[in-house]
Amino acid sequence: MASVRHPERLGLHVRVVLRGGDVVGPGRADLLEGIARHGSIAAAGREMGMSYRRAWTLVADIARCFGAPVVVTAPGGAQGGGATLTDLGEQVVALYRRIEAAANAATEREVVALEALRHAGAE
Amino acid sequence: MASVRHPERLGLHVRVVLRGGDVVGPGRADLLEGIARHGSIAAAGREMGMSYRRAWTLVADIARCFGAPVVVTAPGGAQGGGATLTDLGEQVVALYRRIEAAANAATEREVVALEALRHAGAE
Repeated sequence: MASVRHPERLGLHVRVVLRGGDVVGPGRADLLEGIARHGSIAAAGREMGMSYRRAWTLVADIARCFGAPVVVTAPGGAQGGGATLTDLGEQVVALYRRIEAAANAATEREVVALEALRHAGAE
Repeated sequence: MASVRHPERLGLHVRVVLRGGDVVGPGRADLLEGIARHGSIAAAGREMGMSYRRAWTLVADIARCFGAPVVVTAPGGAQGGGATLTDLGEQVVALYRRIEAAANAATEREVVALEALRHAGAE
């Protein structure tokens, strides 16, 4: 998917604007997916170049937006417990990725046409 | 369309990421449309709460991205001449709006489902 991590790739950067102005975009989806993959908020944030505090704040903000936890953390040993997504967190990620994919699929031809405008003048 | 000017409206905020990382988003489209409507870069920028310098810089950056002018200005009297979009400028706006509309249309059901997740916990 197009995101700030792949700026060379042609496609859409999609933010879903919810009622009241809250936004679900690729950064939040990437973070939740990273937490599911690493089992850790800190590791997911680190992979994206953000501090633990920043990652935790984003997770808390998604939970506020949806009115329930999106990540649960279990107490653990020296490594800390694992962090996992709640059903709600998994649904948020899955729906966002479906929206991102559907938006890209529906606009592929026009996006190519917009890119082609950049080269029309050179011919 | 969903944009920062209508944060309460449910929908997508769509940025088209072109090769190399240049982006065409709602702000640039709004600015070009404002220039066409007002016949003035300054007036279009003012309407969006940006300085003339900022508006001019954005117009110059769109032109750099597409390799040709997107706005032409005619010398004029006390009010200054008129600013109009070039064919390229009009094509950029038209394609962006088609992309924005198609992306929204293709994802309407999933966006409503994402919004509905916010209220599921309260039932």
